[in-house]
Amino acid sequence: MNKDELASRVVARMYDADWFSQWLGIERVETHAGACVLRMTIRKEMLNGFGIAHGGITYSLADSALAFASNGHGRMAVSVETSISHTEQLNEGDVILAKVNELSLSNKIGVYQIVVEKQDGTAVAFFKGTVYRTGKEWFEEKA
Amino acid sequence: MNKDELASRVVARMYDADWFSQWLGIERVETHAGACVLRMTIRKEMLNGFGIAHGGITYSLADSALAFASNGHGRMAVSVETSISHTEQLNEGDVILAKVNELSLSNKIGVYQIVVEKQDGTAVAFFKGTVYRTGKEWFEEKA
Amino acid sequence: MNKDELASRVVARMYDADWFSQWLGIERVETHAGACVLRMTIRKEMLNGFGIAHGGITYSLADSALAFASNGHGRMAVSVETSISHTEQLNEGDVILAKVNELSLSNKIGVYQIVVEKQDGTAVAFFKGTVYRTGKEWFEEKA
Amino acid sequence: MNKDELASRVVARMYDADWFSQWLGIERVETHAGACVLRMTIRKEMLNGFGIAHGGITYSLADSALAFASNGHGRMAVSVETSISHTEQLNEGDVILAKVNELSLSNKIGVYQIVVEKQDGTAVAFFKGTVYRTGKEWFEEKA
Repeated sequence: MNKDELASRVVARMYDADWFSQWLGIERVETHAGACVLRMTIRKEMLNGFGIAHGGITYSLADSALAFASNGHGRMAVSVETSISHTEQLNEGDVILAKVNELSLSNKIGVYQIVVEKQDGTAVAFFKGTVYRTGKEWFEEKA
Repeated sequence: MNKDELASRVVARMYDADWFSQWLGIERVETHAGACVLRMTIRKEMLNGFGIAHGGITYSLADSALAFASNGHGRMAVSVETSISHTEQLNEGDVILAKVNELSLSNKIGVYQIVVEKQDGTAVAFFKGTVYRTGKEWFEEKA
Repeated sequence: MNKDELASRVVARMYDADWFSQWLGIERVETHAGACVLRMTIRKEMLNGFGIAHGGITYSLADSALAFASNGHGRMAVSVETSISHTEQLNEGDVILAKVNELSLSNKIGVYQIVVEKQDGTAVAFFKGTVYRTGKEWFEEKA
Repeated sequence: MNKDELASRVVARMYDADWFSQWLGIERVETHAGACVLRMTIRKEMLNGFGIAHGGITYSLADSALAFASNGHGRMAVSVETSISHTEQLNEGDVILAKVNELSLSNKIGVYQIVVEKQDGTAVAFFKGTVYRTGKEWFEEKA
């Protein structure tokens, strides 16, 4: 099993049990070790009191991207700190993509930048996430 | 209209149009100028691939609390930067509260800390949010 | 050796080799396991192009406080993510205090809030820091 | 005066009064509207209790870069929130560069990512800064 196959299997297992990512309608465009691209569409029930997408929606997409990218190395990783700047508004019907860039990876800590873009390529949010990498593997090696 | 009445009217207007906060099942326990307490319950469709609440759920509750508290002064305010540390896991059925503390308020910028706790009082997440305060009022003064 | 004695010995060892904290003129007002209070005075060479304290000065005081408080448990801890909001300006001659609050502590991760105040008690900056706790002790137990 | 000349004049004025950036030994490699590259060398008095550069040193370099880049547009801008992840250790004698990327710029808010690298091109820290843009110009237009 090469690195991309492992990433794909880990993310498939995570996604299949991830009810909230499914509710969001997240599609996996690409999955790799340390990276992924996710896509979703803004629906009416995702809007806030200003009539634009709730900040929690773009955060949630980026947070799923963080989980999929960092766990894609095959070892279980958990978020310890995340931040997001919402720089553009999103309306119902907008299609957004989250693209992950692994800034740093050590034995115990990974740092990721995730840019969320809408259909015309405009960046709408910038997310930074730090994960702690546990010692547990998603799939045990067979002898 | 005193400050708490104004806060309550602003938040009511925001909440009534906030489909995502309604989907989350957010209840307004208290609303004030610069503060509020919100409550919600973790449902199955809010879980992630680890079988615990998705990070986007607690973030979303805290982000609604940020919006309600900062707009509660009567002037429209928009989030410019938010961060969250998830320190405890949440399971289906857990009831969580978001409590807002206004750290700083100037004419243009507000800084808020929001602690998310579960039913037994344990803190489960720490959120910090910075808002930009626009010049627009939610309700115009009548002559 | 009780917990406060251990914290005090760890911080003394760190401080004695910490040239930058010494250049800043940091004084240890209190040191505990997971907490400390530090004090320093703003000098002319700490000002920026606006004639007020450079953001790096308050950050540095808070970052030293993070290191002292988190290492004060006796195990080596390293910063993985920090953020700071500067909410009030500081002038030459102002005396500032950093006070640490341990928000969360697990086997591997600690989360701390640090408030920086000036002499009249006004908060001037809010810092949040996350550390990774290594497996190394500062002082080995003797048999 | 074109945009780069304006940026250069603003940064020169800021730098000349910025005692702390001068103490750090910061050199201006490039200055533009919304961007700059700064360089400095780690000295002994910048080390912490682990014998490596204090986190406040890289933060301070990045914070100066944030101030120079964001004010380089000609309008006074002040930091409202900054965060930094220190991912590699720095030793005495290391030469570090801060490079600014303007992620977003609106009338009132700017968001910047700053990567700090050492002499061999390795990234050692990732900084994100948000500024509020006031209405004041650094240089008044002449009639």
